[in-house]
Amino acid sequence: MKQNDKLNLTMLCDFYELTMGNGYFNCAYRDRITYFDVFFRRVPDEGGFAIAAGLDQIIDYILDLHFDTEDIEYLRSRKLFTEAFLEYLRDFRFRGDIWAVPEGTPVFPGEPVITVRGNAIEAQLVETYLLLEFNHQSLIATKASRICRAAQGRTVLEFGSRRAQGTDAAITGARAAYIGGCAGTACTISDQMYGVRAGGTMAHSWVQMFDSEYEAFRTYCEIYPTNATLLVDTYNSLHSGVPNAIRAFNEVLKPLGITQCGIRFDSGDMAWLTKEARKMLDDAGWTECKITCSNSLDERLITDLIRQGAKIDCFGVGERLITARSESVFGGVYKLAAVEDAQGNIVPKIKISENVAKITNPGFKKVYRIYGAEGKCFADYICLHDEDVHGQPLELFDPDATWKRQTVTDYTFRPLQKPIFRGGELVYDRPALPEIKAYAEAELATLWDEVKRFDNPHNYYVDLSPKLWKLKQDLLMAGGALPKE
Amino acid sequence: MKQNDKLNLTMLCDFYELTMGNGYFNCAYRDRITYFDVFFRRVPDEGGFAIAAGLDQIIDYILDLHFDTEDIEYLRSRKLFTEAFLEYLRDFRFRGDIWAVPEGTPVFPGEPVITVRGNAIEAQLVETYLLLEFNHQSLIATKASRICRAAQGRTVLEFGSRRAQGTDAAITGARAAYIGGCAGTACTISDQMYGVRAGGTMAHSWVQMFDSEYEAFRTYCEIYPTNATLLVDTYNSLHSGVPNAIRAFNEVLKPLGITQCGIRFDSGDMAWLTKEARKMLDDAGWTECKITCSNSLDERLITDLIRQGAKIDCFGVGERLITARSESVFGGVYKLAAVEDAQGNIVPKIKISENVAKITNPGFKKVYRIYGAEGKCFADYICLHDEDVHGQPLELFDPDATWKRQTVTDYTFRPLQKPIFRGGELVYDRPALPEIKAYAEAELATLWDEVKRFDNPHNYYVDLSPKLWKLKQDLLMAGGALPKE
Repeated sequence: MKQNDKLNLTMLCDFYELTMGNGYFNCAYRDRITYFDVFFRRVPDEGGFAIAAGLDQIIDYILDLHFDTEDIEYLRSRKLFTEAFLEYLRDFRFRGDIWAVPEGTPVFPGEPVITVRGNAIEAQLVETYLLLEFNHQSLIATKASRICRAAQGRTVLEFGSRRAQGTDAAITGARAAYIGGCAGTACTISDQMYGVRAGGTMAHSWVQMFDSEYEAFRTYCEIYPTNATLLVDTYNSLHSGVPNAIRAFNEVLKPLGITQCGIRFDSGDMAWLTKEARKMLDDAGWTECKITCSNSLDERLITDLIRQGAKIDCFGVGERLITARSESVFGGVYKLAAVEDAQGNIVPKIKISENVAKITNPGFKKVYRIYGAEGKCFADYICLHDEDVHGQPLELFDPDATWKRQTVTDYTFRPLQKPIFRGGELVYDRPALPEIKAYAEAELATLWDEVKRFDNPHNYYVDLSPKLWKLKQDLLMAGGALPKE
Repeated sequence: MKQNDKLNLTMLCDFYELTMGNGYFNCAYRDRITYFDVFFRRVPDEGGFAIAAGLDQIIDYILDLHFDTEDIEYLRSRKLFTEAFLEYLRDFRFRGDIWAVPEGTPVFPGEPVITVRGNAIEAQLVETYLLLEFNHQSLIATKASRICRAAQGRTVLEFGSRRAQGTDAAITGARAAYIGGCAGTACTISDQMYGVRAGGTMAHSWVQMFDSEYEAFRTYCEIYPTNATLLVDTYNSLHSGVPNAIRAFNEVLKPLGITQCGIRFDSGDMAWLTKEARKMLDDAGWTECKITCSNSLDERLITDLIRQGAKIDCFGVGERLITARSESVFGGVYKLAAVEDAQGNIVPKIKISENVAKITNPGFKKVYRIYGAEGKCFADYICLHDEDVHGQPLELFDPDATWKRQTVTDYTFRPLQKPIFRGGELVYDRPALPEIKAYAEAELATLWDEVKRFDNPHNYYVDLSPKLWKLKQDLLMAGGALPKE
């Protein structure tokens, strides 16, 4: 893309990251070490959990963070920044630390999925991109997971590029959908860039281009005998499309001994059409012919089609996946959790809001996932960085309804976040996309079905350690960092 | 972005564009001239019209269309394409014609907003990107137009990057929001790339970073005395935030003779808070202080805030604009309308669907906008390319309810589409973004208020010429291009 040739995503930041950066640079806080958490407050679609995604692109972004000469010139032209700050930006790199939950991990509201430690300027600057990438890919991975679970083992393909919200939404959206469970995509460049297998056969225009539907099908089978999925709804699906497809299969594929083929419906009553088509195909001996359906599908429609006994082997899911149409926003936020004073002591920070749900968890924290004897996880446990879970009896309690408590002894655990950057150096062994996908699938198996259902999922426990809980209460009672004037 | 360094958007296509391309190349239709239309079937949010956007990026894409060596290697690795086709791709350029409605034009369902004429391979290949770009930017421009109309002349700023669906959604989304009426954006790179003025001042973290809210405000005013919009809701908006802001204004700005400043609310009851804050500011003599609000706003909430008498000068609109949350899909489609036979005759094509709304308008067409004596437009008139509107009495009739008809004589008109490419050459004088924005605003003034209202807008007339209507009926009666076997 022409205008993207020189795209420096460092400049993809909210302008206030820069005005604040210049502000910190020009006051006492230039070198102040800060801790920021990325977390989200609720799961889209009233779901029970989300799938974290986007870390690999965040790593690319952090590695590439820099200001080009033209970026600095642009900033100078805004007449808001001091020359000393612009000079500082010239050698700017990210030199802080980042911890994050690996891609494909199921995550829950309120827990830090990414934690950034760095000086005020660098830690603030990365806010916009970190949120954008985490929010977007987690949104799509989470939605894809819902759709794939609805398909109950049937193949789901991502078909939404043409309705995606921009080029990157198509490209990394296909990647996130793959992590969430899709088997492939229609988006060619996502295969080329990330190895998300791209596939596809024909549009209606192919069928219309020929003098007859049969001729269109026969020609396609001749050119692609091993990859023939014929779109049967251009004129009349059952009276013309399916019979012409069978004829083409008989005349072209059969003599070649090929038994694998497919048809696709893109309109009409999918339940009725696929049941009828399945009979016609089976009667003609094409029992291995797969039936694909596409047309504004999502997890609700797929669930209903299966309930009706529709004979569908593969779902092509477009706009409702690639834009997460039912709820198109993943609300991850980036909040200051602590700063270090001149002596290196960590001073916890809290944001108090009239809206109780918007109050943050203070301090430099870590998260453990707690598993029961059967290997299923049942709680996440957020504690301060100097606390530990090592198998000791854990007191778990609802941070809002503190009388609801239990002590667990028979459990296993693991820390959720991994170190990604240390002092600006990448210390994370980046898994390949198929590994991420396999990990996501394995992780899904550690969740109780009650957390995974669509309607009224079980509210998974995300608890605070007693020490963290007390710190939060103390800060709230003291009015946070309320002015003393 | 690292992985975008070599991004060739030619590869951002549905895989079937390539399998069809190879198919056409290897059958009789390689050089067949085709006509495709981009149109949409309904306006998001049940609105009365949409704002066309995205053309400038489409032009960049067409100009840059090519396959790199690594693209061809990737395609070869898929073992589906003939060597002759891969060789053909090596010198591939777009050599066809494109007509399109200029960005910023109000457009209506069913009319061709972009028409492509080219050989089957090139015209098919560009489908995915054309739709993606037109759909995305028109979606956001249309949503922005709704939000800005709701604001009734108050400033609306685009604040959504962190919730955008990927990097491009943030960058070109801010551009589209600007076309739709926003005064600026928080997205720095959109200013740098497109000149969408970026602005912003502080996040809650700035306030939290300091030992007191007052100190945070004072420091900010000292560094940015002419650009001080203070975020007042970190602790307690009315008891702490607004008084501290007034104190900082008094102590820093007043001695400098500065009267322009601002405060921003990002949570709480905006109607109540802004009314109280306005009084406090006015009582303190800060009558020019602007009040900005942000927090999950959209056209409905803005309308309601204004109705309640909220004292808001500027709305910062985030996730509900940048993802068009209420309806996140713009459903533009790309359909074959005609082909040329060996003699260069145009043969119209139709797609017949069991879903009547999905039936296409056949033929190589053009669109006129028809204006009444008062300068307001009241109908769009789609006719075949060899028809003309030149002021003659026009018979307008509802293409679905043909007995509803009228003959108009006192009207003015203009063709909606402009030539963009001819034989692969750009023939369009690309307007600068401020021109597009000004054009969009002027165009909006040509619509009746009844078309612009949010609830039950007037159904604008999009009519077919009698000749086009008859052609469509004839094709439908004949079963389109139904197989003759």
